[in-house]
Amino acid sequence: MSKTVTKIGVLTSGGDSPGMNAAIRAAVRTALYYGLEVFGIYRGYNGMIEDEIVQMDSRSVANIIQRGGTILKTARSKEFYNEEGRKKAYANLVKRGIDGLVVIGGNGSFTGAYKLSQEFGLPCVALPGTIDKDLYGTDFTIGFDTAVNTAVQCIDKIRDTADAHDRLFIVEVMGRHAGYIALHSGIATGAENILIPEEETTIEEVIASLSEKEKRKKLVNLVVVAEGHSSGGANGVAEILKANLPNLDTRVTILGHIQRGGSPTCLDRLIASRMGYHAVESLLEGRHNVMVGILNNAMHYTPIEIAIREKQRLGDDWMKMVKILAS
Amino acid sequence: MSKTVTKIGVLTSGGDSPGMNAAIRAAVRTALYYGLEVFGIYRGYNGMIEDEIVQMDSRSVANIIQRGGTILKTARSKEFYNEEGRKKAYANLVKRGIDGLVVIGGNGSFTGAYKLSQEFGLPCVALPGTIDKDLYGTDFTIGFDTAVNTAVQCIDKIRDTADAHDRLFIVEVMGRHAGYIALHSGIATGAENILIPEEETTIEEVIASLSEKEKRKKLVNLVVVAEGHSSGGANGVAEILKANLPNLDTRVTILGHIQRGGSPTCLDRLIASRMGYHAVESLLEGRHNVMVGILNNAMHYTPIEIAIREKQRLGDDWMKMVKILAS
Amino acid sequence: MSKTVTKIGVLTSGGDSPGMNAAIRAAVRTALYYGLEVFGIYRGYNGMIEDEIVQMDSRSVANIIQRGGTILKTARSKEFYNEEGRKKAYANLVKRGIDGLVVIGGNGSFTGAYKLSQEFGLPCVALPGTIDKDLYGTDFTIGFDTAVNTAVQCIDKIRDTADAHDRLFIVEVMGRHAGYIALHSGIATGAENILIPEEETTIEEVIASLSEKEKRKKLVNLVVVAEGHSSGGANGVAEILKANLPNLDTRVTILGHIQRGGSPTCLDRLIASRMGYHAVESLLEGRHNVMVGILNNAMHYTPIEIAIREKQRLGDDWMKMVKILAS
Amino acid sequence: MSKTVTKIGVLTSGGDSPGMNAAIRAAVRTALYYGLEVFGIYRGYNGMIEDEIVQMDSRSVANIIQRGGTILKTARSKEFYNEEGRKKAYANLVKRGIDGLVVIGGNGSFTGAYKLSQEFGLPCVALPGTIDKDLYGTDFTIGFDTAVNTAVQCIDKIRDTADAHDRLFIVEVMGRHAGYIALHSGIATGAENILIPEEETTIEEVIASLSEKEKRKKLVNLVVVAEGHSSGGANGVAEILKANLPNLDTRVTILGHIQRGGSPTCLDRLIASRMGYHAVESLLEGRHNVMVGILNNAMHYTPIEIAIREKQRLGDDWMKMVKILAS
Repeated sequence: MSKTVTKIGVLTSGGDSPGMNAAIRAAVRTALYYGLEVFGIYRGYNGMIEDEIVQMDSRSVANIIQRGGTILKTARSKEFYNEEGRKKAYANLVKRGIDGLVVIGGNGSFTGAYKLSQEFGLPCVALPGTIDKDLYGTDFTIGFDTAVNTAVQCIDKIRDTADAHDRLFIVEVMGRHAGYIALHSGIATGAENILIPEEETTIEEVIASLSEKEKRKKLVNLVVVAEGHSSGGANGVAEILKANLPNLDTRVTILGHIQRGGSPTCLDRLIASRMGYHAVESLLEGRHNVMVGILNNAMHYTPIEIAIREKQRLGDDWMKMVKILAS
Repeated sequence: MSKTVTKIGVLTSGGDSPGMNAAIRAAVRTALYYGLEVFGIYRGYNGMIEDEIVQMDSRSVANIIQRGGTILKTARSKEFYNEEGRKKAYANLVKRGIDGLVVIGGNGSFTGAYKLSQEFGLPCVALPGTIDKDLYGTDFTIGFDTAVNTAVQCIDKIRDTADAHDRLFIVEVMGRHAGYIALHSGIATGAENILIPEEETTIEEVIASLSEKEKRKKLVNLVVVAEGHSSGGANGVAEILKANLPNLDTRVTILGHIQRGGSPTCLDRLIASRMGYHAVESLLEGRHNVMVGILNNAMHYTPIEIAIREKQRLGDDWMKMVKILAS
Repeated sequence: MSKTVTKIGVLTSGGDSPGMNAAIRAAVRTALYYGLEVFGIYRGYNGMIEDEIVQMDSRSVANIIQRGGTILKTARSKEFYNEEGRKKAYANLVKRGIDGLVVIGGNGSFTGAYKLSQEFGLPCVALPGTIDKDLYGTDFTIGFDTAVNTAVQCIDKIRDTADAHDRLFIVEVMGRHAGYIALHSGIATGAENILIPEEETTIEEVIASLSEKEKRKKLVNLVVVAEGHSSGGANGVAEILKANLPNLDTRVTILGHIQRGGSPTCLDRLIASRMGYHAVESLLEGRHNVMVGILNNAMHYTPIEIAIREKQRLGDDWMKMVKILAS
Repeated sequence: MSKTVTKIGVLTSGGDSPGMNAAIRAAVRTALYYGLEVFGIYRGYNGMIEDEIVQMDSRSVANIIQRGGTILKTARSKEFYNEEGRKKAYANLVKRGIDGLVVIGGNGSFTGAYKLSQEFGLPCVALPGTIDKDLYGTDFTIGFDTAVNTAVQCIDKIRDTADAHDRLFIVEVMGRHAGYIALHSGIATGAENILIPEEETTIEEVIASLSEKEKRKKLVNLVVVAEGHSSGGANGVAEILKANLPNLDTRVTILGHIQRGGSPTCLDRLIASRMGYHAVESLLEGRHNVMVGILNNAMHYTPIEIAIREKQRLGDDWMKMVKILAS
């Protein structure tokens, strides 16, 4: 039998992503509904160490479902990497009687939760909060849909200018290790080529395709590049393309941090709400040390250590479609 | 063995939905890639009867992926309901050698395709294009995600005013027979109550919950109502609430047709592109008279007659969550 | 010599409008900069009577410049109409030593400020906060630019559907006595006709122009109507048009309260900031009982009693342009 | 007496700006209304030389008022700098009988029009189409309002992340020689500092103000920098700040080309429509070789040679307000 949870802490950690507030709201209100006490831990594991912990009620999370960022703030904590830091952090939970934890973040944040559960037996539940979408065990991560829509809206604007000037635009989107934002935003904006860390397309193929388009006078072109692509992001790609296709009028735009913020989309608010709600139910039902995901329309619970280790992989029929549709 | 398709027609029919253009683009370009000829049929089955049929090339669908509405226009056709109309329509396909059809629309549009396939043996493929989401055999319908995001953005604005004035707002969203837009937009905006044609919540429960909130001085409230709710949409609900809760400052907003238009979201462009692409592959591979859907992340093909008859049903754990989160 | 102001109150009153928060922020921070104390008065004159008055510091207005609505809330107060109510209200200012007032709102709100200045000698400054734009003595009112952009974005979406279906859409925008929202949004969306309370165009002219368009098969049409138009808003206009042009496929959309909310545009934030800043400077410089406006790019101060009495009038060359451009 | 104009050409030149399509539409339809013939000249002066000139009717400009970019495309032309190029260009006008020209663009585009008017006596009218706003003789330039709203929306998103992480963000906006976009977007987003080519604030002042804020633990900060600022844009500023304030967590985002595109705001559509309309009236009334602007709410006509030479200057009371409001 698992321990009964009576007081829970909630924190956000790692890079912020839109929808984190909706998840916090759902976790807080569900916990209150079931008679638990809830504490907000500020600045991720940093605040757990520094004792920035504040009790929350229903009003604490009023009118935040539509806001980007996270009201609990977020940070990366070096001190939490060593055991001493974690002991100090755990002591701050113990002194308030906090006996359950909801962690919203990405891979690194999950590792923190895993350590707490292993070292102190603290029941933890993790929610996938990252714009990168590459977490294992879930079809959706909180923030991806908003980030990719922001990218699409920006690229739509860039295409107006590309079109007015007959230019080649190389747009860099976020994604150090995963190409989801690049792939989805590239397809949705009709990009001629998409370059992702998974290397589905080579730079040589891009040169060949643009060269063929130049011959038939299609001069307006768009290449979407994930920041983690091996040629060095958009600037690296631009250098190579300019060397190989000197007649094209080539420009670079790096979307950067605007992809992280903004009011979350309906989908991000919805999945964040569902996940926050089921996180608390999961703690209450004794389903501990799992990541709460949604897979094939149903809630899906992945042991945290597996969620940390595995990655969601891109399916493989995308690039053929990209090539055909952008012709 | 199925017939080989060499020339296809594409049409949109019924109410327009954002993403239809992305589906047209994908179907046209995929067909061209495989060496088919493609014809755009204007104004749905009306244009098939009136012979408004135009050959399309790759440029015909350039720069439309981001546009709402449908470049092929749409209509509802009475004449197509009787056999004579359909004969006239089919004759216009025959004279051009069109031997395959891609139909984008909802239930009524599928019925047209089914008739053509039954009466003339014409290979047809249907794509789910409706903002209502209630089609069977697919997790996504083209346009739903955009419509529900439009609703959410509007309700966010209304909440600013509700909040400034301590008012109860009753917002009507689209959905004659299905509550998906109301449910998703209501959850995403933190609505206190959601009234849908499926009648998961009664008006008495709404009165009770608002009355309880009035007692504890929570005066800012939001009720989202699907147009098809039995009490007569938002105006009907408002009348009942005003009679029962005369002290509340109650206002009605009917979102109406703004939910149909607008630039499609990333998700709608993506699923529309995938569906348009697989529609043509489906025709070529002899998978005829099916609706192309996406179910559990994979392409899913439902015989048209089943897609016409069955409905996607709401899951049943939603209303408990709504009640808990809006507390 | 005018009295020296040392403690000021700030309130918003009447219908909320986007940008009010930016004005509050500017007034509060400017006052603090000059060493004044600042008090927020909640729910307009209601809160002044009910003593809902809270001291504010720089942090009170952090991170609100981008928010719709008003953090001070707003209301219409009946009690303030009679002298007794105003005495009670003024007493609440006196007991805190509040000796200056910044009022953000429309005509009715100005009247309240005027009464306070006349009856008690309280130095007041009024800021034009209304989406209707029809205030005298200023080229801009706080909220108009946001409201009209919201209307334009909605009508753009409606046009997608109008276009897909060859329909006539009649869209109602806000404006009981003033046609500015209708006029600007109508021109910006290429409306065929615009009907405003100022009656620049008659319904007969609309019928004639749509009838002429019907003859040359231009079936996609858009008529923008201000809610205060004499034929009874969009529904009234639709009835008349359907009776006279029965072959047109006519639909009505009433934009309603979504025009009030939402994150303010750059322009609304900028003018609200300037006005809030100059409101305090005006109080300090002894320029009392004026409305702070911007006219011909310069700050302009209109005595409140004149601002109450006069209206901004529409220029008269607009309708010819509308007619020519929508051809 | 001035020549009677009977056939006009319309072109867009230089960097594209949102609203150019609205101006084209207005010029074309006004010209048709007055019985003129209208020709669209593609790719600015390039197309005039290359004879890319196409007659336009009312339908040519249907449904474009809401689109970014320019349907006539734009380019910078080297050949037009020398007389031979211009002779070739003018010959292409003469052979169609084009005896009047509407040029939409910035300074460089005006110079082209001026040359044509001087060398060949061609009646020209120029419209201020630039997102930079710094043209003389007009309060508004086509595209500025859209660009600055795009910048504001992006910076709002960035602030979500800045806030979640307690970071200093340095955001670069467009403006090589003019600080209007930086100034307006910076005020509207509550930026702590704004650095513009006009050098109203020094980098030393920025360091001092951030240092003071660091002391009182205000770690979330935003600096908006125009690309043309002498320290080398946002990257240059970041380097200096990091060297001087090593404890701040500093990030850079360069908004880039997304500021050029997108659907124009209501204001940009409105002023573009007015300017396009009055451009044609101006040609017909013999008011030639002027830039059509709007000054103090009235149409204002500046001789092109003056519009080329002079610049709109920033007013000088802005920076004090910035400092007070961002405290």
